Amino acid sequence: MSTSIVDIIRNWEDTRTILERAQNDAPKYALSTVKLHAPIPRPVKVMAIAKNYAAHAAEMNGEVSPVQNWFCKQVTSINDPFAPVMMPVVSDQLDYEAELVVVIGKYGRNVPANRAHEIIGGYMAGCDYTIRDWQKAVPNFTMGKGFDSHAPIGPYLVTPDEIENIENVRIRCYVNDELRQDGCVKDMMFSIADQIAHLSAAMTLEPGDIIFTGTPAGVGQGFKPPRYLKVGDQVRVEIDEIGAMSAEIMAESGECVISTSKHA
Amino acid sequence: MSTSIVDIIRNWEDTRTILERAQNDAPKYALSTVKLHAPIPRPVKVMAIAKNYAAHAAEMNGEVSPVQNWFCKQVTSINDPFAPVMMPVVSDQLDYEAELVVVIGKYGRNVPANRAHEIIGGYMAGCDYTIRDWQKAVPNFTMGKGFDSHAPIGPYLVTPDEIENIENVRIRCYVNDELRQDGCVKDMMFSIADQIAHLSAAMTLEPGDIIFTGTPAGVGQGFKPPRYLKVGDQVRVEIDEIGAMSAEIMAESGECVISTSKHA
Repeated sequence: MSTSIVDIIRNWEDTRTILERAQNDAPKYALSTVKLHAPIPRPVKVMAIAKNYAAHAAEMNGEVSPVQNWFCKQVTSINDPFAPVMMPVVSDQLDYEAELVVVIGKYGRNVPANRAHEIIGGYMAGCDYTIRDWQKAVPNFTMGKGFDSHAPIGPYLVTPDEIENIENVRIRCYVNDELRQDGCVKDMMFSIADQIAHLSAAMTLEPGDIIFTGTPAGVGQGFKPPRYLKVGDQVRVEIDEIGAMSAEIMAESGECVISTSKHA
Repeated sequence: MSTSIVDIIRNWEDTRTILERAQNDAPKYALSTVKLHAPIPRPVKVMAIAKNYAAHAAEMNGEVSPVQNWFCKQVTSINDPFAPVMMPVVSDQLDYEAELVVVIGKYGRNVPANRAHEIIGGYMAGCDYTIRDWQKAVPNFTMGKGFDSHAPIGPYLVTPDEIENIENVRIRCYVNDELRQDGCVKDMMFSIADQIAHLSAAMTLEPGDIIFTGTPAGVGQGFKPPRYLKVGDQVRVEIDEIGAMSAEIMAESGECVISTSKHA
């Protein structure tokens, strides 16, 4: 029997059938023998909402936006769930933001909140690593949120039917085994349904697009003085019913790379 | 002889050879007989810089950022060079921003400004259509800049060797044949080289990534009262040595679409 790799995102309508068939027929591997990669290695859109938990908004500067404030992370920020995360040479203000990540499973435009669940393909854990000084240097968060390796996702893509009630799921972040963040999805200010409605009022959401849904309180920036990450730190993100992923912070070389191939 | 379609972006090192061979061997079609699509229909990154011409910064609110202020447009905003541009149902503040668009031709990370030219694959015209009330509702421009059809690019991808001096190229925008914008690349506050250096200090630039390099003065928002676009308006963007593209503004239906296929 050969290993079968199925592009479930592009065959969403058939996913249940594919998964059921795979459960019966596909070869099984012990988790300890495989290397897990990002479930969606090259998403199209990587959308992320700012300050979506009141306690996190308070620890940042207290301002809560009455309108959803969206930014993008980059496709080149996507990282495997257990891969090292890079401390760049241009800053030492690397911070963590553990988040629930929603995976879009269908095309959707002008989707009302009460139908948003129809286009949700699954959930993952994610960490929205942020370079705080670059984020705060300008109004748009793009650069501070867009560094290579700063969007690990995983460890699995969990379909909605596997989760009893997404509202009750808790998101935790540990730095070197110290619990820093512990929040619950139900405390989001803009619900996942509201997020999908707002985004899709402007843009077509597509299968494989991913949405970082905001981070609970407890980020390094919220401490006085701030507790940014250091090289060698271990960051663990854990979401109930979805799984845990972890990364070691490593120093990046800063060398200039110009190449015609991806891995020069 | 059959039509040959060559993925030049992914074979950048060979591009000169490919283009020279195509010039000799490929079948020729009259421009009037073909429909031009966006030269890069699905870029990976669509980066765009805010307020990069002093006269435009002045017409907006006078603030000039000492640090490059970047936002993203969406892959789903990409539009063919002569396709209609949509007036959304959620706003009537649709505005135009004619821009020079840079196409990345190689992988680049930590690229210094004096080597930035090595990763430039070509140039296009572009229009950074913007929904002003959505842009101004929150600090991040993402939503106001991310509507479907609001990033037409084209009409051709012009390689750098075809342009005598990119610094001298002028960018013009006409609305219903009235000249609204007329600026020169040399008046950018952050040069193309500075832009590539800044972006690549955070993220790996990849072949097919595109960069909207900022818009000159003369946008609708700059008039008192503002002159936003209306359904039926014709917008023409014209860049010396690159080409012209034009679009009619059309009303979008606003209907809810939920689908497993792209063109439901």
